[in-house]
Amino acid sequence: MLTTTTPAYDGLTSTFQRLHHLQHLQSIAWWDQAANMPPRGSDARAAALAEMAALMHRMRTDPQLRDGLDRAEQEPLSDLQRANLREMRREWWQSNALPESLVQRAQLATSRCEHAWRKQRPANDWPGFLANFREVLATGREEATLLAEQSGLSRYDALIDRYEPGMSCAQLDRIFGDVRQWLPGLIQRVVDKQSREPVIAPVGPFPIAAQRALCERAMRLLGFDFEAGRLDVSTHPFAGGVPEDVRLTTRFREDEFLISLMGTIHETGHGRYEQNRPRELLGQPVSRARSMAIHESQSLSFEMQLGSHPGFAGLLAPLVRESFGDQPAFEAGNLHRLMTRVKPGLIRVDADEVTYPAHIILRYEIERPLIEGEIEPEDVPALWDAKMGELLGIDTRGNFKDGPLQDVHWPEALFGYFACYSLGAMYAAQWFAAMRRQTPDLDASIAAGNLAPVFDWLRDNIWSAASRYTTDELAQRATGEVLNPAHFRAHLEARYLAG
Amino acid sequence: MLTTTTPAYDGLTSTFQRLHHLQHLQSIAWWDQAANMPPRGSDARAAALAEMAALMHRMRTDPQLRDGLDRAEQEPLSDLQRANLREMRREWWQSNALPESLVQRAQLATSRCEHAWRKQRPANDWPGFLANFREVLATGREEATLLAEQSGLSRYDALIDRYEPGMSCAQLDRIFGDVRQWLPGLIQRVVDKQSREPVIAPVGPFPIAAQRALCERAMRLLGFDFEAGRLDVSTHPFAGGVPEDVRLTTRFREDEFLISLMGTIHETGHGRYEQNRPRELLGQPVSRARSMAIHESQSLSFEMQLGSHPGFAGLLAPLVRESFGDQPAFEAGNLHRLMTRVKPGLIRVDADEVTYPAHIILRYEIERPLIEGEIEPEDVPALWDAKMGELLGIDTRGNFKDGPLQDVHWPEALFGYFACYSLGAMYAAQWFAAMRRQTPDLDASIAAGNLAPVFDWLRDNIWSAASRYTTDELAQRATGEVLNPAHFRAHLEARYLAG
Repeated sequence: MLTTTTPAYDGLTSTFQRLHHLQHLQSIAWWDQAANMPPRGSDARAAALAEMAALMHRMRTDPQLRDGLDRAEQEPLSDLQRANLREMRREWWQSNALPESLVQRAQLATSRCEHAWRKQRPANDWPGFLANFREVLATGREEATLLAEQSGLSRYDALIDRYEPGMSCAQLDRIFGDVRQWLPGLIQRVVDKQSREPVIAPVGPFPIAAQRALCERAMRLLGFDFEAGRLDVSTHPFAGGVPEDVRLTTRFREDEFLISLMGTIHETGHGRYEQNRPRELLGQPVSRARSMAIHESQSLSFEMQLGSHPGFAGLLAPLVRESFGDQPAFEAGNLHRLMTRVKPGLIRVDADEVTYPAHIILRYEIERPLIEGEIEPEDVPALWDAKMGELLGIDTRGNFKDGPLQDVHWPEALFGYFACYSLGAMYAAQWFAAMRRQTPDLDASIAAGNLAPVFDWLRDNIWSAASRYTTDELAQRATGEVLNPAHFRAHLEARYLAG
Repeated sequence: MLTTTTPAYDGLTSTFQRLHHLQHLQSIAWWDQAANMPPRGSDARAAALAEMAALMHRMRTDPQLRDGLDRAEQEPLSDLQRANLREMRREWWQSNALPESLVQRAQLATSRCEHAWRKQRPANDWPGFLANFREVLATGREEATLLAEQSGLSRYDALIDRYEPGMSCAQLDRIFGDVRQWLPGLIQRVVDKQSREPVIAPVGPFPIAAQRALCERAMRLLGFDFEAGRLDVSTHPFAGGVPEDVRLTTRFREDEFLISLMGTIHETGHGRYEQNRPRELLGQPVSRARSMAIHESQSLSFEMQLGSHPGFAGLLAPLVRESFGDQPAFEAGNLHRLMTRVKPGLIRVDADEVTYPAHIILRYEIERPLIEGEIEPEDVPALWDAKMGELLGIDTRGNFKDGPLQDVHWPEALFGYFACYSLGAMYAAQWFAAMRRQTPDLDASIAAGNLAPVFDWLRDNIWSAASRYTTDELAQRATGEVLNPAHFRAHLEARYLAG
């Protein structure tokens, strides 16, 4: 055996390599569960996945791992190794920060709440939901308090940190406070402008086989490697699998094709990030995607910045015609108008690029005081309605199912997650602003079908960096500044109000 | 915690339950590898599966497991618990009997040989194969010697025992010696008889989507539970997955439909055995399928005894017509003649029910002296040719690729496995003979589409018993006698020579 000056670090890398291999089987089983598994397979699958989770939890909470982390700090590590050690410690912290008994209580509460919510939502049963959600919120508050004590962060910051390390309420208050000022006015101006721009609706049906082929052609156009991934169908689209074998899913309806096409383009952004994480470091935490917001910045770079670009609509138009035959709606300009139609609505996941942040700001402004104990669950509907009125001009009274019951995040206690969606949209706008500085003819290049400047920039600045830098460092290195929401505003104004 | 009089046994059951959960993830990953995985996913998958295999091997070779097995022997166990303990010990033995260094050498040798064989077979490269196969055989002989020393069995018996516990050369010599006497003459008489019975060939193409739907209809007819399983496509058809979620595969060609239909019916037999293993015992070794031959007796009960029954051809005929339109070839009698056409050929996997045992006897008569050191690999081609001449009247000189290079079993060192295929055919004939004694109008019942007597008998006698009894006990309880190849001969004579 070779002698090494970093025995503790080396021991850690082999532990995380083993975890990586086990995670592979876990990820494939999750994908299979969503894409293939017949209903009677679910109990056995749940038991198998629970066994694996327990096994990996034992590996991550083994006291030797903590010793290894402490000893490795004293070893002569390179910058890359030190970044890996930082990410190892982060993963260790996430498995060790909370007492097992609290984790189990929280899992029970969310599992009960989420299960009941599936029927309570269609039944508009807010009081029924409240009965379970109180316990979910109680354990969420307990977790926030414990994480805050140990990390020195505030309670809600400690929850955000699980998804978006380095992000804080102070920043979110500043960012969302700014957006809140200009967004309602912007929405109004866009809606007014679009009311004078008629758009032709496509006429279905759109056969599923043709839709699938169209989605796969769009994925190829966007550089997805089908030798290292697939597209399948699931009820809730997602990007899963492993970096060496990325499994994207979508869903199809015969009467509509644009939702699944744009959804597939969205997942392709997640997929290419995963496919291009640094190959030689796979298995080490430093190779992981930087954060949820940065991941979303990739899916939104693909879906919104590139996929909904007027030049890209020109690339899609002939593919759409080849898939479904010619119709007036498939003219490139009309296709682009279809992709960029803005309409305030009740449902976050159906929202367009312009109204989406309103849904996120609303959730942030309710979730934070909920966690901090300033409001209680029974206060939510009135707040929801008031904020929907302020931000989108919509009356939601009595409609719980399309209101606070619409998302799975609260029944699943994913407190601190929502902000990442809009942060991702803002980062994506910032990436494209930087690309345009580097490649002034970027828009012409996209329209001409040369997407290499986009992919090269993302590969060099985001994908290959993975978790080597903190999020602020990553943004600074890539664009010369940390997150700056002005780029997002400029993007919306340029796309929706110019011309 | 409740006190228990069987603490060691209880500890064992929880260890095997954990192994069962991990095996679930392994099985789904194997299925996915064959049915879905894109090519560039293979290295990561191999590494993940190797990690899991190592982890499970550590669990199975933990010295505490041996202690537990020894202590449980002294505990007051029920008959069922004692049967479970016997199967636990068998699983333990299979993981602990051979030194790790030998297992690794053998894996290296088979992996090298199998990899090269994929190209050597199409190139007819026997000398190239020999260079690798010598090492495969050497480690196979070492394994046989060590297993024989520890078990008290003869060397080849010790290898058979891995697949077919309780089976021995002494029995195989008696069984195959008997078949060898009457088979060549029977084949000749069948071929003569069929030469006077013209058969109409179906006219393709047969669209893949229609073939898949036909296969799924046949599976439903055969009681496959699609709420707990699926049919997919892979290069080499197999029955995989887990008992709660059985994954069958087939493959399709546009110019032929009967091969994939009958192949699917074959896998459905394996699948129903798995779907009907005793639910309350899943996770314990006593719930496993009894042996390879008994498993094959289920696939062949479905494919040959039932699926190729003239009455069943009458049930399939309308489904075939609905799938591909009407043609003369789809008349029930003609369909049955197509299913039961006998023609001596070079390839085992393409062989009909009558000539199949000749391929197995040949392999047994070569493999056994190879393992026992009576012959060497360079002696194989001459023996192969002589035996193909004696048994099937076929000249194979110089044709290695359709001769000793045709099967994956030797490159993969699956010595002792081949016999199970023909033992399965014999058991299947014995099961149906017993069914006919219990249900004298069985053939009329099948023709009328009432398959319940078949399924009920298999469920009561084979599926629900799983590994509760030894194979001889199982056969004795089900049919009043241990394996008796006379039923197989009677079946062939009745189906192929009567009328």
